[in-house]
Amino acid sequence: MAVQTLLDECLSIRGGRLFIEECDADELARRFGTPFTVMSEDQLRRNARRYRREFEARWPAGPVVVLASIKANFALATRWILSQEGLGCDTFGAGELHAALEGGVAPDRISVNGAIKDQPLIEAAVRAGARITLDSTAELALVREAARRLGRRATIRFRIRPDFSTLTEPTDWYEEPTPIAEATRLYKAGIPTEDVIELGRRALQMPEIDLAGVHAHIGRHTNRTEQWPPIIAAYGGLLAGLRDAWNGWTPRELNLGGGYPVPRDPFGRGLARLQGPPRTAPDVSEYAGVVTASLMSTLQQHGFSLRGLRLEIEPGRGVYGDAGVHLATVRNLKAVDSPAPHRWVETDTSDMFLPDVVWEHNRWTAIVANKADRPSSIVADIVGLTCQPDRIVPLASLPEVQPGDSIAFLDTGAYQDGLACNFNALPRPGMVLVTGDRAEWIKRPETVADIFRRDVVPLRLTARQ
Amino acid sequence: MAVQTLLDECLSIRGGRLFIEECDADELARRFGTPFTVMSEDQLRRNARRYRREFEARWPAGPVVVLASIKANFALATRWILSQEGLGCDTFGAGELHAALEGGVAPDRISVNGAIKDQPLIEAAVRAGARITLDSTAELALVREAARRLGRRATIRFRIRPDFSTLTEPTDWYEEPTPIAEATRLYKAGIPTEDVIELGRRALQMPEIDLAGVHAHIGRHTNRTEQWPPIIAAYGGLLAGLRDAWNGWTPRELNLGGGYPVPRDPFGRGLARLQGPPRTAPDVSEYAGVVTASLMSTLQQHGFSLRGLRLEIEPGRGVYGDAGVHLATVRNLKAVDSPAPHRWVETDTSDMFLPDVVWEHNRWTAIVANKADRPSSIVADIVGLTCQPDRIVPLASLPEVQPGDSIAFLDTGAYQDGLACNFNALPRPGMVLVTGDRAEWIKRPETVADIFRRDVVPLRLTARQ
Repeated sequence: MAVQTLLDECLSIRGGRLFIEECDADELARRFGTPFTVMSEDQLRRNARRYRREFEARWPAGPVVVLASIKANFALATRWILSQEGLGCDTFGAGELHAALEGGVAPDRISVNGAIKDQPLIEAAVRAGARITLDSTAELALVREAARRLGRRATIRFRIRPDFSTLTEPTDWYEEPTPIAEATRLYKAGIPTEDVIELGRRALQMPEIDLAGVHAHIGRHTNRTEQWPPIIAAYGGLLAGLRDAWNGWTPRELNLGGGYPVPRDPFGRGLARLQGPPRTAPDVSEYAGVVTASLMSTLQQHGFSLRGLRLEIEPGRGVYGDAGVHLATVRNLKAVDSPAPHRWVETDTSDMFLPDVVWEHNRWTAIVANKADRPSSIVADIVGLTCQPDRIVPLASLPEVQPGDSIAFLDTGAYQDGLACNFNALPRPGMVLVTGDRAEWIKRPETVADIFRRDVVPLRLTARQ
Repeated sequence: MAVQTLLDECLSIRGGRLFIEECDADELARRFGTPFTVMSEDQLRRNARRYRREFEARWPAGPVVVLASIKANFALATRWILSQEGLGCDTFGAGELHAALEGGVAPDRISVNGAIKDQPLIEAAVRAGARITLDSTAELALVREAARRLGRRATIRFRIRPDFSTLTEPTDWYEEPTPIAEATRLYKAGIPTEDVIELGRRALQMPEIDLAGVHAHIGRHTNRTEQWPPIIAAYGGLLAGLRDAWNGWTPRELNLGGGYPVPRDPFGRGLARLQGPPRTAPDVSEYAGVVTASLMSTLQQHGFSLRGLRLEIEPGRGVYGDAGVHLATVRNLKAVDSPAPHRWVETDTSDMFLPDVVWEHNRWTAIVANKADRPSSIVADIVGLTCQPDRIVPLASLPEVQPGDSIAFLDTGAYQDGLACNFNALPRPGMVLVTGDRAEWIKRPETVADIFRRDVVPLRLTARQ
């Protein structure tokens, strides 16, 4: 029997070859045609269950609702899997609300978040019975109008802007060390505190409106759990202020947003100050422990009762990230000796399909799928095929590779597909779902015809001169 | 008569309102529905003619062929306009070659560039009669095979890698000052010099192959023309080396690639070290002058004859950039006083549709189209509507704005549409063409249905539990 090494719950190396669940990654690459992303159904389910379990175990006061952030992966099939696991959905805008409803999410587990909701979106949300997280004062009147027109009471929450100025450690987002406090200060989201106080007074007078709670989200700035106690303290302080301003109102629902890394955490490793040996992020249990303990402590300190309080979290990359593997094929090798030695492994994919290389300075873990147990013997840039520099993994340590080898980029299940573009008129990759030894398309790859489907050429331009 | 101020050849302010050609930008915004990009047909034609004229005037030795880089804007209608103006086309991959052929380009004015060309692409290129710019040793055999099978002689050029190590000034691409020499050294494109020497020896023996010339492209690293003499000197030096290695072979065609800014040059202005008052880039005539003079001088110095030599250039943003204006609508205003005052003007577009904010640290010039002559009185971030920070123009100086106002982002005709994505399940904007007072869609906006068209949901996931 071949030697088997487990990389994690979904990836293993068997006889020198990378397996995703029970599927040989290199065989998948040949069968479906690279580039494409593989999502592991089983890993998605494990992640969903883990988030529920770890938070539910530590939050006995009331229900825990995991609202997976569909922006991280809006393939309908992946959403159906999470719906089967009882997860709710954080949505944004008409497209994401559509995906949530088409993806089998129970409407009372949908939160419609996001800036600049227009009348059609708010009406669709009220009609569906989704919760609406207001992001500006202008939205309250739109919700009231929709609720009146539809003869329903609308459940809303306010997105608040706690004062995060105690967060002095640097965010992983920027090249130059920038305190999280500064990054969150410049972030537009949330209703300014002065406005929210006045807005709450008005909302609490409106019979069409049920102000159920508040929402705050600061996103992933670091993989250390130390950021959470001060975040949650700021959150609790603002809640106490709102209670005082609103005649003792207390929330039934608290939504802490998302912002948690995948275990292998590739985020920011392209930045000079974050390079070094790969860092492992703390487990979800540690995250859940710090978050729930901080929350209980700050709420009790401010005299809030926890009984029946619904705790919501919105993991995105934490649920989807390590369930995804992007597969590419080596197409060419290139080396120069002058002016300094450098090697490139040219693949048939691109950072245009894995754009967090640019947006988040990510450094994905790359494995040569059909040579997964060979020792590293070369250092080369793994590059894509566009006319850009397209350095997907600079200076990767790899075994000797040949054209035809398959390369797997791990932890690419979150955000990459939604951020992919048609640069160089390249068709965007499809997505394959695996469970056990079964594999099938859940998003077909684009064709060149797809790219030009929206083109209209005025007749005067094609007529002969 | 209202006061009229010309901003450039295509933009004016009339009675306080921004006009694109003879079209009121705010009226366009209302008629077509923001966000979308407007392309000025007239400006595209002027740019095409300017490039031809400025280079032809300074290159009497042989033909000048302007191969506009279709990656910068692959809308078929814009390509037809350039085809009418006699421009050729730099293409990359199957999608761009398709666009060039569908866009009316004469095949002998098409160069098929790019890494990792596969057999179908090379065959399509040979069949069409396009020139093929080889980027790796592996491609020669593919071209020969296609030429044999099709019974044609294929015209090829080699993409070469001159030694640019004398280019010590920093590129505008990176936050940390990085010499252009280093950026080009790490850039994968081009055949390593040792390989190209051997490859040329083989190609020159092949009756199916016509090795017509060489190609080099380093892209836009700075808006100063000072970079060009050392680039071209390196290019000439390598050419002389190839001639010596290849028994006196001389090129019939030299392709210098692209890499020239638009006049208002927004590139890199998001970087701390490149901030400051807006910089105006030198005119195309200065660029053409420096390039042609350097080329004549270096070729003559190395003893090449210029007679009949075809000079090719591949402008992308230089042709398309300032012919495009992206229009958005202000949807909400937000201000906080604490912990420090900050304002946001929230629009219905996004840096996901104007991604060179991220990729190139661009700072677009933004004009409130219906208040174009009002003095600036506020400083605010112009932001988009996604859940990201989405700072399209940080700290813009603006007149007092209201929801409903239209904002025009200038110089957005190149690269932005091709780099746009569906983040947050947002439908990508369409494109409108204007000429004079006429305006029409040339690319229809996406719908939510478009975004989910490629989804496939396995039945087992939607069945009731």
